[in-house]
Amino acid sequence: MIYITRRETFNAAHRLYRKEWSDEENLKVFGACSNPKWHGHNYTLYVTVKGAVDEQTGFLVNLKKLSEIINDKIISKIDHKNINLEVDFMKDKLASTENLAIAIWDELYPEVKNLGALLHEVKVFETEKNYVSYYG
Amino acid sequence: MIYITRRETFNAAHRLYRKEWSDEENLKVFGACSNPKWHGHNYTLYVTVKGAVDEQTGFLVNLKKLSEIINDKIISKIDHKNINLEVDFMKDKLASTENLAIAIWDELYPEVKNLGALLHEVKVFETEKNYVSYYG
Amino acid sequence: MIYITRRETFNAAHRLYRKEWSDEENLKVFGACSNPKWHGHNYTLYVTVKGAVDEQTGFLVNLKKLSEIINDKIISKIDHKNINLEVDFMKDKLASTENLAIAIWDELYPEVKNLGALLHEVKVFETEKNYVSYYG
Amino acid sequence: MIYITRRETFNAAHRLYRKEWSDEENLKVFGACSNPKWHGHNYTLYVTVKGAVDEQTGFLVNLKKLSEIINDKIISKIDHKNINLEVDFMKDKLASTENLAIAIWDELYPEVKNLGALLHEVKVFETEKNYVSYYG
Amino acid sequence: MIYITRRETFNAAHRLYRKEWSDEENLKVFGACSNPKWHGHNYTLYVTVKGAVDEQTGFLVNLKKLSEIINDKIISKIDHKNINLEVDFMKDKLASTENLAIAIWDELYPEVKNLGALLHEVKVFETEKNYVSYYG
Amino acid sequence: MIYITRRETFNAAHRLYRKEWSDEENLKVFGACSNPKWHGHNYTLYVTVKGAVDEQTGFLVNLKKLSEIINDKIISKIDHKNINLEVDFMKDKLASTENLAIAIWDELYPEVKNLGALLHEVKVFETEKNYVSYYG
Repeated sequence: MIYITRRETFNAAHRLYRKEWSDEENLKVFGACSNPKWHGHNYTLYVTVKGAVDEQTGFLVNLKKLSEIINDKIISKIDHKNINLEVDFMKDKLASTENLAIAIWDELYPEVKNLGALLHEVKVFETEKNYVSYYG
Repeated sequence: MIYITRRETFNAAHRLYRKEWSDEENLKVFGACSNPKWHGHNYTLYVTVKGAVDEQTGFLVNLKKLSEIINDKIISKIDHKNINLEVDFMKDKLASTENLAIAIWDELYPEVKNLGALLHEVKVFETEKNYVSYYG
Repeated sequence: MIYITRRETFNAAHRLYRKEWSDEENLKVFGACSNPKWHGHNYTLYVTVKGAVDEQTGFLVNLKKLSEIINDKIISKIDHKNINLEVDFMKDKLASTENLAIAIWDELYPEVKNLGALLHEVKVFETEKNYVSYYG
Repeated sequence: MIYITRRETFNAAHRLYRKEWSDEENLKVFGACSNPKWHGHNYTLYVTVKGAVDEQTGFLVNLKKLSEIINDKIISKIDHKNINLEVDFMKDKLASTENLAIAIWDELYPEVKNLGALLHEVKVFETEKNYVSYYG
Repeated sequence: MIYITRRETFNAAHRLYRKEWSDEENLKVFGACSNPKWHGHNYTLYVTVKGAVDEQTGFLVNLKKLSEIINDKIISKIDHKNINLEVDFMKDKLASTENLAIAIWDELYPEVKNLGALLHEVKVFETEKNYVSYYG
Repeated sequence: MIYITRRETFNAAHRLYRKEWSDEENLKVFGACSNPKWHGHNYTLYVTVKGAVDEQTGFLVNLKKLSEIINDKIISKIDHKNINLEVDFMKDKLASTENLAIAIWDELYPEVKNLGALLHEVKVFETEKNYVSYYG
């Protein structure tokens, strides 16, 4: 069993809030992250897959194909977008880093299986000071 | 003459566009950065000041005071904000990194002078792949 | 189960030595790290906690509260201090990175539990070339 | 049980290809990495070992000795070399990052055991965008 | 006058040597970098251009176009290549980082002028421990 | 004219204070940096030299020799040391990053001249948030 990780980046706007709460309640729970006029981040995404090394190629998976999948399923939908308003896989979800990591996992899991590997970890950095990991 | 640099960070949403242009024209010139629903970044700001070393303290300036000025004049106004809609020193300006660096210079120049030093450079990273420097 | 990590930094002086050993014996075992006049580091601390995502907030824990705990229990006691002489949770312990990681774990474990999560990992970088991880 | 990690770097040339395949077949599977005239990387290697903390020293292992082992068994043989042509532990192996991580594991495992610890992870970064981890 | 910098990366093999010298003489002057079987690096390239901000766009130059130029003139010719054998703009030149920075400058200078800006600096990192800057 | 930069690191303890001042006065001016029991840092040093490229070697200077000079004149004297008590070139000087950069310049200037180049910049990072540059 071996593990290979691909790093990708995207930029997006978001807001943490519950629409059934007032701005004051949202501010109390989510602080500056609840700004109704949005803020944003340079997100960094690490996708780790695991499996056996193919004896013919010396590869676990073809990294170029893994990168294409991540770009097709995630980056092209979220980069330079508003996570709350424009990203199908985050629809009706609170735009926290935790929920983002889980949603990215759900998008990538079947695709990685088609590549002949297993998704192991989705890690999302929101800033250089915090990141979330999800293992399914 | 010696130079000392302080690094600070902030997160913000923005959009590159001219309101007198259509969305199509904005898209043509600004690409994905003109998304009407916003996107955002983790910006990194480096402020360099220059001057003589104080013989009593061994300091060019007190870095804690320099950091307070940057936080008071810049970070507190832009962090977790929408640059186009909420930041006084960017009002009526195109929210490019170039204009942001120039506006931060204009805010900080007199304050640094009051500290007894000269502002030398304002450097703003928008992503890990591009940054702007302004020297006045 | 999801994992969230917070990064904090602190600067401190320390010395690796056993007081019942001579300076020569300490030098033989600990090398330059046993310098009786101290040396120091910029330490980087990563604290990872795990648990379930709260459906109301989309959070595992409130990161601001996690950061306050780390600052209150660890950073405020060790930053700009001498680890051997001034840090209560390192009293009578050899000031190695291994012992530091274990002591930080012991300080944070009950506090993280009060937040409604479980401490998963304490990782301490002493330099860019070496770090220690402890999982309890 | 505690984990300590040492970071080392090396530069090398390599080529991904199977000699029984034509250049066209190799290009199809390995892309630009199959360039017959070689290309190269700054590799970064993280070696993690695990075990109990020695009460006398506060150390899991003496990091200087761990570094010497990594330099003696790995870095001195691969740094500034051609991985396909000159590195004994990669002889007759496809020079993928996966195979490199496994081969480094096999070289280091008995040596780390002699130090009184267990090898836990070999992680190899080929570029800033991808890395492989192997746990035996 | 404002300065904007774009970061790009490429991987390549190279060898430092003079063909009219013996391997021993090359080894004496260039050390391990003269290995006749090649070694390689992950190079990082920073290209800084300067000029006035366009009032209509808020841009010095369109960064996407600058990136396309760098990719067209430099990256596509050197990435995953052997610098000594395959890169037209390094033909008959010693493959040092100094010469590489100068050659990249010469390739980019007229192209940047066509964009309406002036090339200010070409900076090339060969490893994380050394880089070269050239200002024409 | 070309510029080449070498990066080196060292760890040290220090204290900012004037001995003719009381601990209270020192605390007022220097804050936590005046802790009488010391604190410390992982310093990063960038040394930039300038000159013409040698046509025979393609080098401005032999980087290995530049590194040896930096290690001989600076690193070997300050690494794992107490800057206030043990470093000859900081004797009787306030141990600020400003004074450190100037003192390193004074040590290296004649040595770099002997190598056939000119010292251009000494840059010292005290933490990831601040650094000092000195150009003579």
